[in-house]
Amino acid sequence: MTETNYDIIILGAGPAGLQAAIHSARKGLKVLILGKNDKSSLWWAHIENFCCTLEISGEQILKTGQQQAESFGALFFNEDVLKIVAPDLMSADGNVFTIQTETKVFKTKAIIICTGTTRNKLGVPGEKDLFGKGVSYCVECDGNFFRNEEVAVVGGESAAAGGALHLTHLASKVHLVSKTFNFAPELMERLKNENIIIHEGAEVEKITGTSGVDGLVLKDGNKLDVTGVFIELGAKGVMSLAAELGISLDDSMKFIETDKQQRTNVPGIFAAGDICGPPLQMAKAVGEGCVAGLSAAKFVRRT
Amino acid sequence: MTETNYDIIILGAGPAGLQAAIHSARKGLKVLILGKNDKSSLWWAHIENFCCTLEISGEQILKTGQQQAESFGALFFNEDVLKIVAPDLMSADGNVFTIQTETKVFKTKAIIICTGTTRNKLGVPGEKDLFGKGVSYCVECDGNFFRNEEVAVVGGESAAAGGALHLTHLASKVHLVSKTFNFAPELMERLKNENIIIHEGAEVEKITGTSGVDGLVLKDGNKLDVTGVFIELGAKGVMSLAAELGISLDDSMKFIETDKQQRTNVPGIFAAGDICGPPLQMAKAVGEGCVAGLSAAKFVRRT
Ligand SMILES: Cc1cc2nc3c(=O)[nH]c(=O)nc-3n(C[C@H](O)[C@H](O)[C@H](O)COP(=O)(O)OP(=O)(O)OC[C@H]3O[C@@H](n4cnc5c(N)ncnc54)[C@H](O)[C@@H]3O)c2cc1C
Ligand SMILES: Cc1cc2nc3c(=O)[nH]c(=O)nc-3n(C[C@H](O)[C@H](O)[C@H](O)COP(=O)(O)OP(=O)(O)OC[C@H]3O[C@@H](n4cnc5c(N)ncnc54)[C@H](O)[C@@H]3O)c2cc1C
Repeated sequence: MTETNYDIIILGAGPAGLQAAIHSARKGLKVLILGKNDKSSLWWAHIENFCCTLEISGEQILKTGQQQAESFGALFFNEDVLKIVAPDLMSADGNVFTIQTETKVFKTKAIIICTGTTRNKLGVPGEKDLFGKGVSYCVECDGNFFRNEEVAVVGGESAAAGGALHLTHLASKVHLVSKTFNFAPELMERLKNENIIIHEGAEVEKITGTSGVDGLVLKDGNKLDVTGVFIELGAKGVMSLAAELGISLDDSMKFIETDKQQRTNVPGIFAAGDICGPPLQMAKAVGEGCVAGLSAAKFVRRT
Repeated sequence: MTETNYDIIILGAGPAGLQAAIHSARKGLKVLILGKNDKSSLWWAHIENFCCTLEISGEQILKTGQQQAESFGALFFNEDVLKIVAPDLMSADGNVFTIQTETKVFKTKAIIICTGTTRNKLGVPGEKDLFGKGVSYCVECDGNFFRNEEVAVVGGESAAAGGALHLTHLASKVHLVSKTFNFAPELMERLKNENIIIHEGAEVEKITGTSGVDGLVLKDGNKLDVTGVFIELGAKGVMSLAAELGISLDDSMKFIETDKQQRTNVPGIFAAGDICGPPLQMAKAVGEGCVAGLSAAKFVRRT
């Protein structure tokens, strides 16, 4: 890789970035993807709810997507972005961004941010070992695997309450566990009406089980006989790069705000996927990636 | 099928409708899809630009999607919708819609419109036989197959001009053919600057070729030696149902207007896919389908 000048640089090699690359590279533009596909949220996932593919591993999806994007001419460089410098309008090449990765510097006319989010971890014994075997960070994705089973949701924000409510339609019994609850009293009332068992003031000690979760042990010694534990502590975006460039965030201040063409408020910068907010789902990520790839191509060509 | 009451009824069995069904049925709701999957725009297509699936036939995609949606409990009924009646707020079941198909009547709490668009045809000899063998209705989808070949775009609206401009980056020579041109003089200037060969006042007589397109014959007897013919006469939406319900259209008056949650202006009615406007691409259709499915589920559950 000796070239350093591109039409479009895409940050992130998850499904949003891959789909953006496919659509922009097919327009004949010079496209580079930065980032590591094994850092995508999807890498460890098993997907059964993406049309129209039967159950498939995230790793396989991402590898196919990379191969596909490369077949249209997109290039990949496996490093994270450390810094982005906005165009110096006074200089000769007046409208290019400068992007610094771990070891290299690139220039580009447009940027698509597809850096996803990192789901917050609980940090207790059993969490990591039983991940995918009863421990989940996504009610939306995995709730369906726990029909008629007893489950717990851990978290005190509205996302956790919403997750618990959804699960009442699937699971036989739903616990909600948190030291404190940080949402409206009406919502608490509804949780109780839906027979959700509220453990206020409770802290998780560990998650137990060998081949699969068989319990959630609280610090007060209580044990919940659950087979599923959903950790819903909210998602934090990778936002510092965005802030430096003056990119507007949405009202929650956790996600990048875009219009329907996936444009941010900064001309030449587009965004797609989980970084733009819920639902944090692969289908939404590729949809926004497609739109962002075409919008960025239009911006570069000024058609 | 004796049941006639549903939580969500989805109009259209293309990728947008299938993805909406997958996401809403997985929430445990009663979901019915109306429409015919062999009427989807995708049925006859070959897709190479949908992450993360290598080239695949539209027919195969749609069949897999139906199987997947059924596995989560969604039901299918192979008839078109003829009429939708808005909730009668004075009646006992105050907030249900009534939907009439060719032979049956259904009731539902929410509707997702995913009826796609129908691409306008030129109606000349060769068009139908050579479709997919050089005749295309989608520069976005198929332009890439004509690298370094000579091609023609037929159409006089800005969509045709935009298509011709894109093709200059791929094809060796681009013709634009129409009886009249209906776009700004600046755009006409640009077409000429990009060496697009303009045939104003020209009408298409026929498209020639056997295994593939080998020419476009005009009514004045001229023949263009092209291997690709893009018919870009704009897309017309299936809009009469929408109009009857008072659903707002976008500025072009061709597509349904939605917010980022895919809600229309009518409470309980959502929309996704091509019917919501460009880009008319499968990736965008599934992205919007996912969001619409989750929004409609939220509406029904009032969470
Ligand atoms: C355990 C789990 C299970 C899931 N199951 C499902 C499911 O069943 N169905 C479903 O639809 N969704 C599921 N999801 C959600 C799905 O994975 C995400 O919605 C999807 O991956 C979002 O795509 P994205 O491209 O926006 O971000 P990601 O896939 O997270 O990709 C982000 C990319 O950005 C890169 N990056 C980050 N920072 C930088 C930087 N500074 N510079 C350069 N690159 C950077 C990363 O390396 C990565 O390549 C699941 C998620 C998890 C965590
Ligand atoms: C020839 C061709 C090639 C293409 N190639 C590609 C490609 O390579 N890549 C790509 O991404 N996209 C491609 N597309 C575009 C792609 O097919 C569409 O973007 C996609 O199918 C849109 O999905 P949809 O669900 O919105 O609508 P559709 O797939 O068109 O589905 C519409 C559904 O609505 C139903 N319907 C209509 N009216 C009613 C009614 N009154 N009642 C009930 N149901 C109704 C129909 O029966 C159908 O099931 C191509 C399109 C064409 C025509």
